[in-house]
Amino acid sequence: MFEVRERDALARIGLLETGHGRVTTPALLPVVNPNRPIISPTDLARRFHAEILITNAYILGKGPHRDSVLRQGVHEFLGFSGAVMTDSGAFQSHVYGDVDVTNAEVIDFQKRIGTDLGTMLDVFSEPSHDRTRATHDVDETVRRAREADSLRGEMALVGAVQGGLHTDLRERCAREVSALGVSVCAIGGVVPLLESYRFQDLVRVIIASKKGLDPSKPVHLFGAGHPLVFPLAALLGCDLFDSASYAKYARDGRMLFADGTRRAAELLESGCPCPVCTDRSMKEIAGSETLLAEHNLHICFGAIREVRRAIAHGDLWELVERRARAHPTLLVALRELRQHNEFLEAFEPVARRGALYYVGPETAHRPILHRFRQRVMERYQPPPAKGLLVLPENRRPFTEAYASALSRVMATADVHAVVKSIWGPVPVELDHVWPMAQSVVPDSLDVESLEAAEVFFREWAAGAGYPFGLLWEGESSLDELRARAPGHRVVDWNASRVRATADYQFGRGAADAILRGNISYVVSKNTGKVRNVLVDGDHVVSLRAEDGLFTLKAAGARRLHRAFRAPSLRIVVEADAIPFIREGKNVFAKFVREADPELRPGDESLVVSPDDELCAVAQSSMNRQEMLAFKRGVAAHVREGVPPSPSALPR
Amino acid sequence: MFEVRERDALARIGLLETGHGRVTTPALLPVVNPNRPIISPTDLARRFHAEILITNAYILGKGPHRDSVLRQGVHEFLGFSGAVMTDSGAFQSHVYGDVDVTNAEVIDFQKRIGTDLGTMLDVFSEPSHDRTRATHDVDETVRRAREADSLRGEMALVGAVQGGLHTDLRERCAREVSALGVSVCAIGGVVPLLESYRFQDLVRVIIASKKGLDPSKPVHLFGAGHPLVFPLAALLGCDLFDSASYAKYARDGRMLFADGTRRAAELLESGCPCPVCTDRSMKEIAGSETLLAEHNLHICFGAIREVRRAIAHGDLWELVERRARAHPTLLVALRELRQHNEFLEAFEPVARRGALYYVGPETAHRPILHRFRQRVMERYQPPPAKGLLVLPENRRPFTEAYASALSRVMATADVHAVVKSIWGPVPVELDHVWPMAQSVVPDSLDVESLEAAEVFFREWAAGAGYPFGLLWEGESSLDELRARAPGHRVVDWNASRVRATADYQFGRGAADAILRGNISYVVSKNTGKVRNVLVDGDHVVSLRAEDGLFTLKAAGARRLHRAFRAPSLRIVVEADAIPFIREGKNVFAKFVREADPELRPGDESLVVSPDDELCAVAQSSMNRQEMLAFKRGVAAHVREGVPPSPSALPR
Repeated sequence: MFEVRERDALARIGLLETGHGRVTTPALLPVVNPNRPIISPTDLARRFHAEILITNAYILGKGPHRDSVLRQGVHEFLGFSGAVMTDSGAFQSHVYGDVDVTNAEVIDFQKRIGTDLGTMLDVFSEPSHDRTRATHDVDETVRRAREADSLRGEMALVGAVQGGLHTDLRERCAREVSALGVSVCAIGGVVPLLESYRFQDLVRVIIASKKGLDPSKPVHLFGAGHPLVFPLAALLGCDLFDSASYAKYARDGRMLFADGTRRAAELLESGCPCPVCTDRSMKEIAGSETLLAEHNLHICFGAIREVRRAIAHGDLWELVERRARAHPTLLVALRELRQHNEFLEAFEPVARRGALYYVGPETAHRPILHRFRQRVMERYQPPPAKGLLVLPENRRPFTEAYASALSRVMATADVHAVVKSIWGPVPVELDHVWPMAQSVVPDSLDVESLEAAEVFFREWAAGAGYPFGLLWEGESSLDELRARAPGHRVVDWNASRVRATADYQFGRGAADAILRGNISYVVSKNTGKVRNVLVDGDHVVSLRAEDGLFTLKAAGARRLHRAFRAPSLRIVVEADAIPFIREGKNVFAKFVREADPELRPGDESLVVSPDDELCAVAQSSMNRQEMLAFKRGVAAHVREGVPPSPSALPR
Repeated sequence: MFEVRERDALARIGLLETGHGRVTTPALLPVVNPNRPIISPTDLARRFHAEILITNAYILGKGPHRDSVLRQGVHEFLGFSGAVMTDSGAFQSHVYGDVDVTNAEVIDFQKRIGTDLGTMLDVFSEPSHDRTRATHDVDETVRRAREADSLRGEMALVGAVQGGLHTDLRERCAREVSALGVSVCAIGGVVPLLESYRFQDLVRVIIASKKGLDPSKPVHLFGAGHPLVFPLAALLGCDLFDSASYAKYARDGRMLFADGTRRAAELLESGCPCPVCTDRSMKEIAGSETLLAEHNLHICFGAIREVRRAIAHGDLWELVERRARAHPTLLVALRELRQHNEFLEAFEPVARRGALYYVGPETAHRPILHRFRQRVMERYQPPPAKGLLVLPENRRPFTEAYASALSRVMATADVHAVVKSIWGPVPVELDHVWPMAQSVVPDSLDVESLEAAEVFFREWAAGAGYPFGLLWEGESSLDELRARAPGHRVVDWNASRVRATADYQFGRGAADAILRGNISYVVSKNTGKVRNVLVDGDHVVSLRAEDGLFTLKAAGARRLHRAFRAPSLRIVVEADAIPFIREGKNVFAKFVREADPELRPGDESLVVSPDDELCAVAQSSMNRQEMLAFKRGVAAHVREGVPPSPSALPR
């Protein structure tokens, strides 16, 4: 079983339960060659804190230790009390052309040696395979996955995804294999891509596979053992990595680093803070395969921990964009991601703790910013005005004095104002929404970002489609703005921000629904910003200072529930769970029957009964696809239970 | 004394001799607070391999340990047998507004405690100081530097460079202070810039100071203790860094990383491979000031070693460009560098071992590429032709088949061909010169790089100024090229490459000078490329496979010596040294009297006597400014001594 604890992009920190303990993911599985263990499994556990390792069932079954491992079981044989995954021989078929073992034999052997995760014998689909051959690879892999599922007994099974570079085949294979009784889904056939730095193809293969995969199952990326790829692969939803690289590169005198590989003999110093490099001279290290392997393991485990740190902190995108500079081919892979924003966006949380940092011209294409631009187009309604005032990037976020001068100009000249930011046009009423007010952007920008800002603006202006009587551009100083508006009328910022935010966050029409009636605000004494919004005396929403979005209250939820039809904003739960949810208990994924496909992790949502009665207001922690797939974990954190309406009570 | 062993950009790996051993630079000097040492000096040496540390003479002199340190000397007092540098109290005057000690007192105290490097009491020039105030800061600092020099006795003195943000004042202060008897020059007054991430200003201050500084003296950047700045500051020629940060941040519960700072309490894992983070839980680390300080030290020392690794390997520019993505303000600083290319270029070696990696749109502005564009404009002479064929970036470097098809087109259609690369226009005859054939560039490029390629091309086309009868653009495939030229005449690649390279490397006219006569080539059997060039039977130059540049032979040197007037290509050495140099001994900097200001590290050069008699051909390892400044180290490695001409022999 797999449970998610933290998430960022498609990455997650999860707990994978095995027959030998829980494994925190993303996890690195060091490959142990049973015939030539360079670091003993005992040391892997004791000195490197490995919770899981991987060894090869095919090699064990064919090798001199077959009888011992059958007699002792794989854990005792290796001297490792943590989780053990075994591979099947598919990679050996890639290397040697064929293997002399059947799927059924290898499953049987893995059961007998007591592996925690046993792998089916899939067909290694080379990147060069044409559609016909790749179709055959997939058909045969799916057939064997079914066979393995039927034979596995109590063994947790690893199913493989093949299909070469054919994205539709990858997606089909992923869908069919992950629908079976497999505990882990492994993306296979990628080693040739990794070996030749074909990271753009790797991205396409992972994304195609993820589209088909059951999101509740952990994903293993077979053969990915170089720290260079961990951040990107984790970002795309890979949870497990196996590394033979630490040993292979050591044998070849090479050292792994987060930004590449270097030959030990060519270095006077490694520039690495790991225990090996801190305590030993470069000469000693270069002369010892064991020390090289230890260094490589420290770097690989460190890189996996760094990925987990970034997921927990919510800055995995920054890590990926920074690391992409380690090699031009990684940068090309990063630039590929924008092609898949429709898919990636569905998994992106609505906000995170810290700031969003500009890393390069790729930053503007992150899913969170793609979503902002999309929602501004689809959900935001500009107030009626005679013209548009276009403000430059550097006015964001607004100071109080600037906002005040701006509001006078807007009211007096009857204009509507938008910042032409490098993230896209930002209506001034939405300048406080994450990450618009929480971005760290350089003072001077690259040409690509500036050009993108123009393109984003034009797309929006064309899409907005309302007639601009006048269009001023480039006002920036307070004095200029003051000179424009000698009058004294001012825009009501509170009202316009609250309206714009409601539509932006919940969908067009939400402002009308929530704010119909007599509106009043509770305003922060320190910042002058709206905290709570009351309508006809009911507290409908609170505005969060940290991300500029609303926390929905029961009264607001009732209004949205009346105004928006199912499935909008809803999470439909099983009838059994409703009494608990009304009491304020969280919504567990296994009780979710349906949900709005537009809901995103972090979104405010309406928890309803199968006949659409409002039971609670909650903050979702999954999207629809995840809520329906997961059997474990919280789908939404209930903020407030809503009691049954009198008409619905049993009489 | 300071001697340079390796160099890259303005950075160098050096050896600084002190009264307590040699220190390898770039070096980190951990700050030891004598009243509150969080890691003992013994541990700094034993566990962190610190060769040098820094403590504060002002605090020692005012504190409770004054008598002990005077009695024991600073080394015994601290329990540290390596080098000790002491600071003077100038930073305390920045923090507290003033200090109650005089320059003379603090110099005297440092002499008495036996410090290895004692610092004058300079005037801390705040970035906010206007010109008048900063002028006073500089005048007073220079006055005190003179005083300190007169008082220092045997103590090695650290002189300080002040002047706030006023670049001319910085340069003057640097020139006047480094002309005195100081062993180390320290750039001061930068802590306020570091604290507020004003890295663009930091770059301006360092460059202005470096312009005035004696290049033979090591440069200390006072108060720079965050690994974020080490690569950039080293690139600009800073050799010593002191870090109180490791302790200060630890006290505040914060952890240093190469890409920034993080609060320990907010982390579940640090994602760091250092001994502390490998062995301890995050909870333990977060709760212990000592463990935090140890982690911070491991990271800082690791970052310094990484800088040294990059210098030795010649990829410091890549490291700097990658690390600049850690914060937008660092990226702005990186983008500032192109404004200083005239200065930076003078220190840039002509080639290096490995490939040049594209990191971002800033890469095209590296000094080495700036130089390539400049030399193509100034030195390269296009062959007479009726037109210009402009080839796209992706044809570089050429395959043999492509070169052959291209040569037919060029000869038959009488055109001259240039690649419109993102590094600037590359005449096809120069496509093998480093780094044109040794660049790793992504398949798809950012808009800024593409736009820069256009601008570079237009600048060149405008500057080249010859009438193009026709201009074809965009031919790329072999088939297209073959279709253009059914004829059989071909360009002689060997001849055209050798001519173009000679002019590019030695200056316009070099091809005529070297290649007058009967030319023959020794060609590599494996690659078909020219190895040696013979004229009238004399071996004049060899073409190096690794960087596409010539190694000059005595016969070639004689021809260049006749054709180019002094000071071109010359290193003038003292008469005393000439017999040794003729025998093939290297040219030591202390014997250099003059040199061509156009010579760059790695350039082939003519070693001549004061009356311009050719004595040897050599590969320079310094530029003119360095040759004249250094009293230690090799200015040029002699390839071949040249015997005196018969007329010059004593009769």
